Amino acid sequence: MERLWAVSTTQSVSYSIKRTRRCLDLDNRDLANAVGTDNRRTLVVVDSMVMQLYGPRIAAYFDRYAANWTVLPVEASERRKNDETTGRILREFDRFGLSRRRDAVVAIGGGVLTDLVGFAASLYRRGVPYLRVPTTLLGMVDASVGVKTGINFNGRKNRLGTYFPASQTIVDPEFLATLPDRQIANGMAEVIKIALVKDSGLFDSVDRDYSTARGFATDATTSGPIIDAAITAILEELEHNLWEANLRRLADFGHTFSPGFELRAQPLLYHGEAVAIDIALTCLVARNRALIDEATFSRIVSVLTRIGLPISHGCITDEILQAGLADSVLHRDGAQNIPLLTRIGAAVFAQDISPKELVAAAESLRSLHSRLIGAWMP
Amino acid sequence: MERLWAVSTTQSVSYSIKRTRRCLDLDNRDLANAVGTDNRRTLVVVDSMVMQLYGPRIAAYFDRYAANWTVLPVEASERRKNDETTGRILREFDRFGLSRRRDAVVAIGGGVLTDLVGFAASLYRRGVPYLRVPTTLLGMVDASVGVKTGINFNGRKNRLGTYFPASQTIVDPEFLATLPDRQIANGMAEVIKIALVKDSGLFDSVDRDYSTARGFATDATTSGPIIDAAITAILEELEHNLWEANLRRLADFGHTFSPGFELRAQPLLYHGEAVAIDIALTCLVARNRALIDEATFSRIVSVLTRIGLPISHGCITDEILQAGLADSVLHRDGAQNIPLLTRIGAAVFAQDISPKELVAAAESLRSLHSRLIGAWMP
Repeated sequence: MERLWAVSTTQSVSYSIKRTRRCLDLDNRDLANAVGTDNRRTLVVVDSMVMQLYGPRIAAYFDRYAANWTVLPVEASERRKNDETTGRILREFDRFGLSRRRDAVVAIGGGVLTDLVGFAASLYRRGVPYLRVPTTLLGMVDASVGVKTGINFNGRKNRLGTYFPASQTIVDPEFLATLPDRQIANGMAEVIKIALVKDSGLFDSVDRDYSTARGFATDATTSGPIIDAAITAILEELEHNLWEANLRRLADFGHTFSPGFELRAQPLLYHGEAVAIDIALTCLVARNRALIDEATFSRIVSVLTRIGLPISHGCITDEILQAGLADSVLHRDGAQNIPLLTRIGAAVFAQDISPKELVAAAESLRSLHSRLIGAWMP
Repeated sequence: MERLWAVSTTQSVSYSIKRTRRCLDLDNRDLANAVGTDNRRTLVVVDSMVMQLYGPRIAAYFDRYAANWTVLPVEASERRKNDETTGRILREFDRFGLSRRRDAVVAIGGGVLTDLVGFAASLYRRGVPYLRVPTTLLGMVDASVGVKTGINFNGRKNRLGTYFPASQTIVDPEFLATLPDRQIANGMAEVIKIALVKDSGLFDSVDRDYSTARGFATDATTSGPIIDAAITAILEELEHNLWEANLRRLADFGHTFSPGFELRAQPLLYHGEAVAIDIALTCLVARNRALIDEATFSRIVSVLTRIGLPISHGCITDEILQAGLADSVLHRDGAQNIPLLTRIGAAVFAQDISPKELVAAAESLRSLHSRLIGAWMP
């Protein structure tokens, strides 16, 4: 005699993102409200660089609003986004005596910091609530919009992770004023990504309104509408597929080959730079297949290079491209599911991209890149 | 101007538990069906001891049913239930080239092994499907029923973990035949736990039908109904609260103080033994409060000791009890939420247990334990 028990249930998940201005000003209560005013203890995990720039303002803010708070500075970088740093954060949670629901964890930093803290928060006591305050453009328009946490492992990008939403994310573009230009470009790659597959109006805005990184970082009338539109488009794409039940994801645009070379590139590539190269590569494949025309391809390359993003890199060998193709199939349930543009604002999923096709496209980009660097870039 | 995005959605979760007999026999296709027959690659993670006992049968079974399979033996023990062992399993997932959905991970072993593999599976690529085949009584009636995975960390029991269901669990009581007596008692503690808070009929069955560990392990007419009733009762308790949104959990009975001494006890305590001590302690508190009468308390202690479970241990100091009380409050949202029996089969949640009350109960149990060990136990 056998017996079968079947369990079928649903988990409710809700979270919010608030875009505000000057969230560390003492008269802005958004962050204080997110933390809660009922005598919670608060552990504020801050990127070391952000701590140098904003330490006194962070202290003044939490001194005002939090009954009992402790700051934990963490040196966050792609190379340190690993199990060792996760272990360190987790031991600090334990030392702080973090309770399961009542205390607040606040992560203030870029995407690497918020991914690390989110990962640790998802594991400690099987999940403690946390809040995010992204301080980089990449954090604002990418890492802090969805529910994915993660760390690099065994030399592989984001190989470990969880789906665990921050209860609230506070987006404050004022932080961009202290961000280096290259970090502005880094975040713009994700804006371009979502614009290309979903929102041609956003791409038009970037093409029209973005002139320099400094201008973007310091002029809220430019950055505000672009950041808001990017968050809106990404959320629209993610919210019906938060756990990635469907592995045909437009958000994977630019993320097929980039994980394979992002961690290996010398000189170092930022995440958005690797994504830009992947975008250029798959756009050239799309042009070679006549899915998009030459003018569209040129316009995309022109916007990427104007922002200061690369479209090729010396590290991209034929082997890297083939390995990227193979790992993408492992990661997308046995299918390539590679987004290819059909116009600016729309894409289809390719299943039949050949290594030969890729290698040829990468070769063309190498020479285009050399010419453009001569013509456009510093 | 501010802007707010609110995301609210639900995640569907379903999994099943199948109780079968002789799941490694070649004519039993339950495990083969769970793995799937469509050319999946299969990674079978097996407890080293189970490998010694069942290695040839496991090999024969997967040779018959799996196109492509690899075995990974893991030495699982409470002391090795840590981040280091998790890292080793994760590196093996990577080496195997585990895909995100198409391949199968099968965990065969006790609760420690299935908790470890479940934890690793929940993190790798943010979650890969896995199956469980518990080989211990504790695994069958406890670890493999719910969705909790976990490892010990920083000297604390199950301090890290995730909620991640095995897609299917195959329960086969035939494995009990090779389980040491002490491991049978270890699992019976969880049967007693759920019986005491939810199912007086199950407690009656244990009291009436359980005579010796060997008898239980080898006589399916005794073990079958008890295991089925325990799984049914635990699932009833868990399935509406899989993510522990409600922190008043009857299943926490016996699990308030035990996490504080389980890992420290010398000589070593098994999980179920620590739970039995916690049960005896809180039952004595309930008797001292006149929630249950003396006869009920004595009957519970008599069943525990007949099974070979302890009701006290030299490691339990006043400090351990006070620390357990404090950590329980951290873990249950600022409230004690300690289940106390009101009769066999029902409990209430206490919020006001004092250290003094606990220390007095522990003291009484120490002398009762000494007397009973003289009278009852070998």
